[in-house]
Amino acid sequence: MTHAQPPYLLTPGPITTTQTVKSAMLRDWGSWDADFRAMTDQLCQQLLTVANARETHVCIPIQGSGTFAVEATLGTLIPQTGKVLVLMNGAYGQRIAKTLAYLKREHVVLDKGDYLPPMPDEVEALLQADPDITHVTLIHCETSSGILNPVSEIAEVVARQGRLLIIDSMSAFGAIPVDAQTLPFAALISSANKCFEGVPGFGFSLVRRDILIQCAGQAHSLSLDLYDQWQYLEKTGQWRFTPPTHVVAAFLQALAEHQAEGGVAGRLARYQRNQQRLVAGMKQMGFSTLLNEQWLSPIIVTFLSPQHPNFNFDDFYNRIKAHGFVIYPGKLTVVDSFRLGCIGQLYDQQIDQVLVAISAVLDEMQIESGYAELPEHNAVTA
Amino acid sequence: MTHAQPPYLLTPGPITTTQTVKSAMLRDWGSWDADFRAMTDQLCQQLLTVANARETHVCIPIQGSGTFAVEATLGTLIPQTGKVLVLMNGAYGQRIAKTLAYLKREHVVLDKGDYLPPMPDEVEALLQADPDITHVTLIHCETSSGILNPVSEIAEVVARQGRLLIIDSMSAFGAIPVDAQTLPFAALISSANKCFEGVPGFGFSLVRRDILIQCAGQAHSLSLDLYDQWQYLEKTGQWRFTPPTHVVAAFLQALAEHQAEGGVAGRLARYQRNQQRLVAGMKQMGFSTLLNEQWLSPIIVTFLSPQHPNFNFDDFYNRIKAHGFVIYPGKLTVVDSFRLGCIGQLYDQQIDQVLVAISAVLDEMQIESGYAELPEHNAVTA
Repeated sequence: MTHAQPPYLLTPGPITTTQTVKSAMLRDWGSWDADFRAMTDQLCQQLLTVANARETHVCIPIQGSGTFAVEATLGTLIPQTGKVLVLMNGAYGQRIAKTLAYLKREHVVLDKGDYLPPMPDEVEALLQADPDITHVTLIHCETSSGILNPVSEIAEVVARQGRLLIIDSMSAFGAIPVDAQTLPFAALISSANKCFEGVPGFGFSLVRRDILIQCAGQAHSLSLDLYDQWQYLEKTGQWRFTPPTHVVAAFLQALAEHQAEGGVAGRLARYQRNQQRLVAGMKQMGFSTLLNEQWLSPIIVTFLSPQHPNFNFDDFYNRIKAHGFVIYPGKLTVVDSFRLGCIGQLYDQQIDQVLVAISAVLDEMQIESGYAELPEHNAVTA
Repeated sequence: MTHAQPPYLLTPGPITTTQTVKSAMLRDWGSWDADFRAMTDQLCQQLLTVANARETHVCIPIQGSGTFAVEATLGTLIPQTGKVLVLMNGAYGQRIAKTLAYLKREHVVLDKGDYLPPMPDEVEALLQADPDITHVTLIHCETSSGILNPVSEIAEVVARQGRLLIIDSMSAFGAIPVDAQTLPFAALISSANKCFEGVPGFGFSLVRRDILIQCAGQAHSLSLDLYDQWQYLEKTGQWRFTPPTHVVAAFLQALAEHQAEGGVAGRLARYQRNQQRLVAGMKQMGFSTLLNEQWLSPIIVTFLSPQHPNFNFDDFYNRIKAHGFVIYPGKLTVVDSFRLGCIGQLYDQQIDQVLVAISAVLDEMQIESGYAELPEHNAVTA
């Protein structure tokens, strides 16, 4: 069975967007023109407002994927003489360490493996033991396991120890509350195509103005020089180099729809509902989640693959796609897993449909229910 | 008079695209999915075919604007021990020198000022005099003046001297013929939103395979590591980081329309016709071009601003916009100028309309015909 409709995306992004968001791309803008400059300004002001950061931070959009925005932030904010503590529990923490190696910035790593959260007290001990550490990086929601890391508690520790926190909030900002006046961060990075439900093409960084002002000449790259991008925006209202005009237009529509849904609170409520409905239905079919409930994010959930001779991820993926849904592979080193995203244009109806599809596919593959009860992998405890 | 229709863009890009190109963005793709991987492969193969480069080169798309693709190419191809001769006659040549300064790559500059072309014999003399030079960079069409640089002649000299040529063909490739089998280049860079008439969001580099294979570990940036991007594409069919899926879909449609128009030859013919019609009409109103006919590109033309007390570019710009056309400011250091692009969805009808609009605006501004005959600025000779 194939579907004429494009499949729904149960992925960490790009996600399924509304038709109205996509339709905002049906015209062309001159990037030098005042109309487009006003769009850029509106985008930045609205993002700062979502984070309650207008008084303290600036918003700098940057072309490319979210990783480009993370690299731009690291390269611009961390001086050659800086030293970074990288909090790592999955692929995105690893990517930050890899980026710092490219940038030749000294760094140490707290590696918690595939899915354990970095705990505030161990972070504090590391900072106390090493006064040379100037910056700490944290992944807000580590989508490789789907874990929501304890960002408030860690931010508090980092601030108490007088270091600067850089948060990769790629797949969290927009759905997980962020208040810059109570959550101390030097920079928070996200992108267009995650919880704001825009289409991919740029990322952005919210950076404390008093810190950024000191960062001239630190970047390793012209394209990724966030300070230079900011200065030019301030002076001209324009991006330095050609912006993805259509993607920006789509994002403004996505921001309007985010607001109409009740902002962060409204979006979080829907994603939580998606996640709970999805996890409940999957458990009923015999699937287990990698993480205990406490650490499950409303963004994406990792399920353990059935330990059944008939199970093969590619086959499972293609069959579910034929039912109209695109799922996501696992990214763990130790156990076989797959992931289901809860973000994007997904509602009760789609969640119920994907559960029906997965059940049907298990039948097609002759995998009987109850095969996947592997509580010994459910290893994360408080 | 304001127009309900969005204005036509007479700019060097983003340009006016077809509705069918924009409509290709009306669905969402999973970036991990086989459907999208096939789209990426098709994109790369078609671009290599346009340059007759399938046997010798690989095509690597990279997220961001064209400048990101230029920086990625420079950072990946030029080793720390390399030395670059930067051929410069405008803002884009200057940007390459600025990028190399960020990358800490040694370079020397042949700076021809605002609009003189670098001549093959002076390039050859510089290469003969300095055997340490490993790479030469050239802007194919320098849009700051609109000049079409003598790329074949310079490529021949660089090859004869045994150095590697990197061509920034941002606003030329797709409309100016490029044949990798007769034009020797190590890399040629362009982007989605120029002569192929896609929307902005990524660039690409066509790189000689035998050179790229030697470039592991040279890049200064993870995001902009073209070697790493290539390896990952080869291995998985995927971009390393989230691609601008909708922009890629639009580009495939743009490539189909490029082919339907007769490929490079067909597109060049239309742009040349636009340029000739535009220049003839402007001259009739008393405007002069900066360059002699020999150096005019069919991409964008620089006109000298009227030397009239009533002339003010911002006013001129806004009035023409009210007539339904967005023009482009000048980028020269010595003389006041403005630019009119010939690329994008422009045909006889639009060229005639913009000429009518400019004539009307001159009347509105009470600038009489014949004010702008300044042949002494028409300084480029053969």
